[in-house]
Amino acid sequence: MLPEGDPVSSSPLFLTCMLCIFLVPLAGAGLAIINTGLNRSRSASHAILSSLCVSSVAMLVYFALGFSVQSVYGVPSHTVHCIGKQWSLLGKGPIFLHGFVFDLTNAPLVFLYSMFGVALASVIPISTGAERWKLVASALSTAFLAGVTFPLFSHWVWSGGWLSQLGHNSGLGLGFMDPGGASCIHIVGGVTALSIAWILGPRHGKYTQDGIPNATPGHHAVMVLLGCMLAFVGWLGLNSAGAILFAAAQAEHLILVVVNTALCCASAGITALLITRIRFGRPDASLTANGFICGLVASSATSAFVSPTATLAIGIFSGALVLLSIEVVEFHMKIDDPAASISVHGIGGIWGNLAQGMFANFTPEQIARISNASANSGSGQFLAQLLGVAALIGVILPLAYGANWILNQFVPQRIPIEGERQGTDLFELGSGAYPEFSILSDDFSHM
Amino acid sequence: MLPEGDPVSSSPLFLTCMLCIFLVPLAGAGLAIINTGLNRSRSASHAILSSLCVSSVAMLVYFALGFSVQSVYGVPSHTVHCIGKQWSLLGKGPIFLHGFVFDLTNAPLVFLYSMFGVALASVIPISTGAERWKLVASALSTAFLAGVTFPLFSHWVWSGGWLSQLGHNSGLGLGFMDPGGASCIHIVGGVTALSIAWILGPRHGKYTQDGIPNATPGHHAVMVLLGCMLAFVGWLGLNSAGAILFAAAQAEHLILVVVNTALCCASAGITALLITRIRFGRPDASLTANGFICGLVASSATSAFVSPTATLAIGIFSGALVLLSIEVVEFHMKIDDPAASISVHGIGGIWGNLAQGMFANFTPEQIARISNASANSGSGQFLAQLLGVAALIGVILPLAYGANWILNQFVPQRIPIEGERQGTDLFELGSGAYPEFSILSDDFSHM
Amino acid sequence: MLPEGDPVSSSPLFLTCMLCIFLVPLAGAGLAIINTGLNRSRSASHAILSSLCVSSVAMLVYFALGFSVQSVYGVPSHTVHCIGKQWSLLGKGPIFLHGFVFDLTNAPLVFLYSMFGVALASVIPISTGAERWKLVASALSTAFLAGVTFPLFSHWVWSGGWLSQLGHNSGLGLGFMDPGGASCIHIVGGVTALSIAWILGPRHGKYTQDGIPNATPGHHAVMVLLGCMLAFVGWLGLNSAGAILFAAAQAEHLILVVVNTALCCASAGITALLITRIRFGRPDASLTANGFICGLVASSATSAFVSPTATLAIGIFSGALVLLSIEVVEFHMKIDDPAASISVHGIGGIWGNLAQGMFANFTPEQIARISNASANSGSGQFLAQLLGVAALIGVILPLAYGANWILNQFVPQRIPIEGERQGTDLFELGSGAYPEFSILSDDFSHM
Repeated sequence: MLPEGDPVSSSPLFLTCMLCIFLVPLAGAGLAIINTGLNRSRSASHAILSSLCVSSVAMLVYFALGFSVQSVYGVPSHTVHCIGKQWSLLGKGPIFLHGFVFDLTNAPLVFLYSMFGVALASVIPISTGAERWKLVASALSTAFLAGVTFPLFSHWVWSGGWLSQLGHNSGLGLGFMDPGGASCIHIVGGVTALSIAWILGPRHGKYTQDGIPNATPGHHAVMVLLGCMLAFVGWLGLNSAGAILFAAAQAEHLILVVVNTALCCASAGITALLITRIRFGRPDASLTANGFICGLVASSATSAFVSPTATLAIGIFSGALVLLSIEVVEFHMKIDDPAASISVHGIGGIWGNLAQGMFANFTPEQIARISNASANSGSGQFLAQLLGVAALIGVILPLAYGANWILNQFVPQRIPIEGERQGTDLFELGSGAYPEFSILSDDFSHM
Repeated sequence: MLPEGDPVSSSPLFLTCMLCIFLVPLAGAGLAIINTGLNRSRSASHAILSSLCVSSVAMLVYFALGFSVQSVYGVPSHTVHCIGKQWSLLGKGPIFLHGFVFDLTNAPLVFLYSMFGVALASVIPISTGAERWKLVASALSTAFLAGVTFPLFSHWVWSGGWLSQLGHNSGLGLGFMDPGGASCIHIVGGVTALSIAWILGPRHGKYTQDGIPNATPGHHAVMVLLGCMLAFVGWLGLNSAGAILFAAAQAEHLILVVVNTALCCASAGITALLITRIRFGRPDASLTANGFICGLVASSATSAFVSPTATLAIGIFSGALVLLSIEVVEFHMKIDDPAASISVHGIGGIWGNLAQGMFANFTPEQIARISNASANSGSGQFLAQLLGVAALIGVILPLAYGANWILNQFVPQRIPIEGERQGTDLFELGSGAYPEFSILSDDFSHM
Repeated sequence: MLPEGDPVSSSPLFLTCMLCIFLVPLAGAGLAIINTGLNRSRSASHAILSSLCVSSVAMLVYFALGFSVQSVYGVPSHTVHCIGKQWSLLGKGPIFLHGFVFDLTNAPLVFLYSMFGVALASVIPISTGAERWKLVASALSTAFLAGVTFPLFSHWVWSGGWLSQLGHNSGLGLGFMDPGGASCIHIVGGVTALSIAWILGPRHGKYTQDGIPNATPGHHAVMVLLGCMLAFVGWLGLNSAGAILFAAAQAEHLILVVVNTALCCASAGITALLITRIRFGRPDASLTANGFICGLVASSATSAFVSPTATLAIGIFSGALVLLSIEVVEFHMKIDDPAASISVHGIGGIWGNLAQGMFANFTPEQIARISNASANSGSGQFLAQLLGVAALIGVILPLAYGANWILNQFVPQRIPIEGERQGTDLFELGSGAYPEFSILSDDFSHM
């Protein structure tokens, strides 16, 4: 957190941060085609239209309401007094940006970064609800994400809330730190995806009567892997802008952030490829893509604070962890998550945040500017990160589940069985994504 | 318009403007795949090759000739004396950049911005002529666009011409203003598209003998919606760079421009989705995409001058207007415009320019730097914008139609009927876009 | 080469260079889908997974080892004494960035630029080995590219090695200059691709028993042409960042670089389109794409040093040359290169480097800052460029061939014949790229 009213150091850094933010929507575009490619073709149009739709809803709702919940560091907020300290729980920002001043402080940048960040988060549950989630329900669910869960947690982390105060108030390192949004964007997206998966249940035919999952390959591997490449460019912007805004990064520091981002996803992707090759005899394209993106997710929490060699370790572990998580989710938890968003974004984000607590080595400048603390981390930083993860699981997950459960009472979120048979494209949109291509008849008998 | 010889304020802003311009070709790539996806598959390769070809031709011709017509603000131009004032009608810039100095003034940036802008404009008519426009004719038509119509109008707006002088000379607000090119790029592209549609006529089979249009769905919805996402990133650059060059925007002002851009397309897209859902019972993916892009087009004229809440109103109206316009064009004017470029770019651009006249609220700095005027707009600004639109319809449209009509006498622009039967891919290029995919037999009997 | 310890002039230019580098991976994404689209569908997933995999391997190996070979200008290196001068042959940089300082000098930028550059280079041979190159072999081959050949040559050119010293030590102009990497990235990639083509041999069925090549059209023209558009944006970043780092470009100079880049690819693409239209009666989409990319490759060597009109000549010649080269490679050398990487990147890069020797007109500032020489080029510059090309053919090609030949003894690089029959997707990955689409039965009988 920068001190109140502190400009982002200089006009060049302000402009650089803005330009980095311009790249963030490429991450959303990447995720959208990954999700689409990992669906079946009869739901392809629905998948990508849902992504565009929820991104739009997320930006509008964040502008209307979300930002008032999140606010920015340094302005008055709703606080409670506890253990002898003031803790900030909720922002008091303007709705509809009413009275907001666009100046050279970091406030306008935080708004823009968060608006594109929530659009990115909103795409994550789309893949989990693939082929069975009503478009209108996903839009309403996203309104809650953008208006409540995302900005609430972002206030705690990015806008001076209690998690970021853990350093100054309780001596836990620099407090919970997550400049690139591995928590605010990805875990929030991941726990929302988990809620959706529980509420919707698996696709018909995904599990046999004995609970054995059927394989449901995606329909377009090129989309999936092109999506990884687009997401990579988006992430360069995401992590750099976050480092400027929330990790006191100066110009020269940004190169380290980007090098770490690249090393993390590269090592995670290669690890996933190698493990699938060893386990199944052949590399798996979609699991490699999952590993690659999981590395990007983890890097968002770590890349501003760790060394390149530590990043290698973090990336390799990400690539292994995501495969394990996918297996646990699919086989043991019986959760149907076609593009593995829960594992990639949820578990990947948790790992990134904990890894940062283990490997972070803050610069004196970061320590001085972020927390005015005088001591480096010790185990306090890990504890702060653990508390952040606990808050996500203990508060944000129940909130997301509860809201979506209530929504489900009013607007049943799942499309009826005949819709699944037809595919969501025909059922909800009235036309398929590829009307001129001959599609192989899909055996729906086991469904 | 910045005063003569005035540098773009500072090196950081100069470099930022350049980097924003680097993103503009993503808008062209986005439009190209939108157009391609909204065609039938037998013309897909032709559609995207035409886009690449006309973009290239546009850049080359603009470099060779167009820039001499457009020129930049502050250097001598061809003027006429009228109503007691000097009015600039035509630039006197260099051909082939002969003797042009690449310095830190805004002239090189205006050149680069316009060169990428005309490449973007050139893609717009491609979709209107889809499946029946000869590649060579589209290239020749584009040469006229890039050499005459685009730079002529751009001179009037961006380079100190008579439309921009309406403020200073006639007291109409700040004069015609369109920093992001909703007129120079999009309406010029849109009226060219209209000319092409009139000259080519509808595709065979598009209308029954009773004049009822047949539905002609696109062949690839994922391309269309991915195109929206790529275009969005391009537009962030387009509107920001335009605001720096033509709206005296400083660093902090740019965030507002970008927030408005995002809100405008998001609200337009959602509006189109909701209206199609209400009218047809189901959301329509391609009309939603049209709405989204129409919001982007409108934002190019407005985002530097209006508040975020006014932007919401502009966006919502854009999304509704484009649907109405598409219906009028297709059902009442009997014009066959497969990707709705006339409505999205032409009508969207007109709406954006008029909306700016209604909602604009200039900052004192803009007033001081742009026109040295002392009073805020009143109804004068709306009148200036109306005059600009009138000039487009009264001068640029006849020019574009006339030139393309003459071209049509020498090089018949429409491919013969057997070419339509085969598809332009096979007929003009000798091979299809997807030679290994099995394409469903298209019933050509009604054609 | 900037003098030792010299910062990249200013923080704005440092940040601009970084942001330009962020766009470079779009060039890799573009090449990846070009390659994929020019393959047959049964190898599409393999092609793009290989691209992602080798890019990742390249970045990891460059970080671990390659940078120590390349190093940066101004730090001690391995030198030899010859003809009365010290010549630098090999860098002494850190492995794993051990002890590397991320500061505001150009060293961190050179690292990042080279890491993304080697990722781009690694994608080039993938297309040449299409449909028959084992994934594991391509990864191992890439490790050699990223650890030895790329950094070795980059040291010679970008990091103060003997080729860059030819100006100062031997009076050959400013020494070998290639700021955008037409040699380091593209020719190195091209000669590696040639080695791979020789070692793998042509695809089964590519040549009849009489040695006549069969046409093997790609499976997805839209991917190919969209790839050109994405690559264009990547190249804007590539050439601009290179010009800042290795051609002493200041802010105003960068606009010229970008204008040249755009004119070069546009004229090359149009030339290829026109020639194919004249020769075959119809424009060829994939050869036009080859011409377009060849123009981009050539521009990397020239765009910082030549005028826009000279660029037109260079571009037009690029478009013609690549077609001639493709014919020579396919018909006379009997080399099977599905996406023409050898011609596009290898020959295009050679042409760009030689053209620069012919057309370059250095600014006094470049002369002063780059070589401290006092005289403009004369024929010396051409000789320096010729020596660079000779070094690529005389040293890097044998190295690449030798290493891949040895690798082939341990890990046979070519997949067995049944793998080609099935397609590399099924054979190596176990599933196709488009499992739901009906693919036309491919006549494998002539193979």
